[in-house]
Amino acid sequence: MSPCAACKLLRRRCAKGCVFAPYFPPDEPQKFANVHKIFGASNVNKMLKDLPVHQRGDAVSSMVYEANARVRDPVYGCVGAISSLQQQVIHLQSQLTVANAKILSMQMHQAKVVPT
Amino acid sequence: MSPCAACKLLRRRCAKGCVFAPYFPPDEPQKFANVHKIFGASNVNKMLKDLPVHQRGDAVSSMVYEANARVRDPVYGCVGAISSLQQQVIHLQSQLTVANAKILSMQMHQAKVVPT
Repeated sequence: MSPCAACKLLRRRCAKGCVFAPYFPPDEPQKFANVHKIFGASNVNKMLKDLPVHQRGDAVSSMVYEANARVRDPVYGCVGAISSLQQQVIHLQSQLTVANAKILSMQMHQAKVVPT
Repeated sequence: MSPCAACKLLRRRCAKGCVFAPYFPPDEPQKFANVHKIFGASNVNKMLKDLPVHQRGDAVSSMVYEANARVRDPVYGCVGAISSLQQQVIHLQSQLTVANAKILSMQMHQAKVVPT
């Protein structure tokens, strides 16, 4: 059996029960490379071991996402996405407030024009 | 002069020109502790040295934000915030679409009732 992508990059034997193996298959070397570059293998190892097995897959996915974002944007990483989404939420909320005010004003106008 | 929070935690001399000192003052030990726990001091050192000085402050802020989020939520970290903001954007967009459709329908109705 070929070693997982983590053990391959770390040049170590991929022992049975390797904590990385279920999440870093040998055919996706870049997935581990970025996580290793940003968080460091020993931190990732520790973070995974501190979690119950059923949450490790999600933890790996979020770490891979964060690591890829930080490699793409070394200054803001995925915090850049958070800022831009926050801006988008503020913009949409203000557009919705304007639209709702317009609806209210039209309803009041209509009530005057067509009295029930 | 007292060593910066990073050198204090790493138990090393805080030399003149220390890459951490401008961003990790001794009176904020937790700021470095979380970044160290999640990214590792040597990765942070490397990431900062790879950036021009004027971008390092922003990089530290975003790393501190990410590290704090990961300490609070070891499974999703700040990717949890991204998912929840994305949900909020989708919800607001659909509310806005409904509001705009209502405005259009009221405008058409008004045009029939009050011909200009």
